[in-house]
Amino acid sequence: MAKMLVLTEPDLRAIVKLDASAVTCIEDAFAALATKPVVMPPILRLDIAEHRGEVDVKTAYVPGLDGFAIKISPGFFDNPKLGLPSLNGLMVLLSTTTGLVEALLLDNGYLTDIRTAAAGAVAAKHLAREDAQSAAIFGAGLQARLQLSALTLVRPIRYARIWARDQQKATATARELSGTLGIIVEAASTPAAACEDADVIVTTTPAEQPILKAEWLRPGQHITAMGSDSEHKNEIEPAVFARSSYVADSVAQTRRLGELHHAIKAGLIAPDRPFPELGQVIAGQKPGRETRDSITFCDLTGTGVQDTAIATLAHRRARESAAGRTINTQESAGGRP
Amino acid sequence: MAKMLVLTEPDLRAIVKLDASAVTCIEDAFAALATKPVVMPPILRLDIAEHRGEVDVKTAYVPGLDGFAIKISPGFFDNPKLGLPSLNGLMVLLSTTTGLVEALLLDNGYLTDIRTAAAGAVAAKHLAREDAQSAAIFGAGLQARLQLSALTLVRPIRYARIWARDQQKATATARELSGTLGIIVEAASTPAAACEDADVIVTTTPAEQPILKAEWLRPGQHITAMGSDSEHKNEIEPAVFARSSYVADSVAQTRRLGELHHAIKAGLIAPDRPFPELGQVIAGQKPGRETRDSITFCDLTGTGVQDTAIATLAHRRARESAAGRTINTQESAGGRP
Repeated sequence: MAKMLVLTEPDLRAIVKLDASAVTCIEDAFAALATKPVVMPPILRLDIAEHRGEVDVKTAYVPGLDGFAIKISPGFFDNPKLGLPSLNGLMVLLSTTTGLVEALLLDNGYLTDIRTAAAGAVAAKHLAREDAQSAAIFGAGLQARLQLSALTLVRPIRYARIWARDQQKATATARELSGTLGIIVEAASTPAAACEDADVIVTTTPAEQPILKAEWLRPGQHITAMGSDSEHKNEIEPAVFARSSYVADSVAQTRRLGELHHAIKAGLIAPDRPFPELGQVIAGQKPGRETRDSITFCDLTGTGVQDTAIATLAHRRARESAAGRTINTQESAGGRP
Repeated sequence: MAKMLVLTEPDLRAIVKLDASAVTCIEDAFAALATKPVVMPPILRLDIAEHRGEVDVKTAYVPGLDGFAIKISPGFFDNPKLGLPSLNGLMVLLSTTTGLVEALLLDNGYLTDIRTAAAGAVAAKHLAREDAQSAAIFGAGLQARLQLSALTLVRPIRYARIWARDQQKATATARELSGTLGIIVEAASTPAAACEDADVIVTTTPAEQPILKAEWLRPGQHITAMGSDSEHKNEIEPAVFARSSYVADSVAQTRRLGELHHAIKAGLIAPDRPFPELGQVIAGQKPGRETRDSITFCDLTGTGVQDTAIATLAHRRARESAAGRTINTQESAGGRP
């Protein structure tokens, strides 16, 4: 077994999309975290300060799935100056029974975008009001666009406001999303204005200082904070914890890397205070939204189970459609074309 | 930059061999660990107990090298029952300036074998007597064969004894090595007999109980313990610490995973006792062998700097010889052949 399937970004874009099946895939992954003896080691993190670079390696073993992914996610923040994307990466899918590499998913970060957006949909599905019609999105990048798209898969969203530090970008993103989603999307001039009528608020920025204030919230809202996945990132004012019911993707991670980390640092939350996880809410082990007027708050830092789930889905789809190319690692790759 | 170079095992075998340049490559890597601001995060470890599987992910950033490797090493110990190797794996080489993936080294563990054997040579070069002529090798597997071969690169080895639990395997390995290395190699009937005349003792087994006893040692010997790279492995009786000068590849690792871990657990060594590292000995910051009669003991658990170093060497050689094949991750990999 020296053969592995190689799938490139276009191969993966053709077989995995942000749709209901991706949402179900990620929902099942979170549920597994609560109900099965999942093994999810702490993230391996390498910092290359002199090039403003960081690499995260995530993995998780989910009993019942054939494979597990090891995902390599580099972020090098001087790349745009060189005309290169900041983020890229790949996933390696290994067999859970033999450890042999089954597939190289050379996705340049595409599967991460999808599984991250799908997690936003899962959070809204289990925590937002059933009849949520309006959304506020903080941020105007790719993940902002995907998050709004993901929300429309699980809630009857009819209008949305985009707020971003760069007003022009917010306006352009709003116009684009209006067209692709067929709903009313407008740019908001202030973050407070964006939140005003929103049933769901999603933050997707690299902010290092809070951009969502507790005083703007009103009963019945749901917040999903996507941005923070490392110690220095912080989108949500710690005072929001006092006004909302908090749910983590993984408490072990959000205590170190998420919004919870900042609330603990601010002394507002005891470091060992238990909180429900999204998987426990999905599995019915913990309550999600308790009343129509509750404010719910889901903190997503990104977990290895999501990577294993989406990589397994991609591999299954690739086999079904005979996508990709097989490399035999025991034969020479030959001269370069 | 969506292109990456793919090198398979035969490609890598053709350009990287266990020779003097591999030893220098690994020697420089250890020296860098002592002299440069290397970033080497703790190993990411995933255990899949139900399939007797484990995966280690190692990495290290070495300032001055163009790239850094992320190595995925699975070990699934029921594989031989299926006719599959226990160990395999691959390395991903990323640019230190952009984080983009430059090469996929689909080596099935070959580069790990080489960098591990080269580390044994480096340890002997800096710690064994200059005129060491005889070796004892514990174990009769691939790494045992490579370790003896590696020793001959740095010391004038003329005869060697192989001891392994499986006598037949020891005899076969001894016969093979006699032929390939052109020196006298014999199987030893007991581990004590193997050590008797050995100037250098190398242990390369997966033992979980000590197989080398302190009472067998004599002045002037050097020991390299290669086998232990996880908590439950243990080749060297903790009493050896009292009779020898100890050097670690990485004290942070050997305290958790190496022979040092067991000496600490046995209460013979204080958990925070400092020890020299191999890189510090190479760089002249710490003494190595102090007298002709000292007993030296080097504990190797395997470090990310070795992986980054050997992967960088392989990539350079591949570019020089135009080996491998380029994949454009933004083009479909096409139908399977």
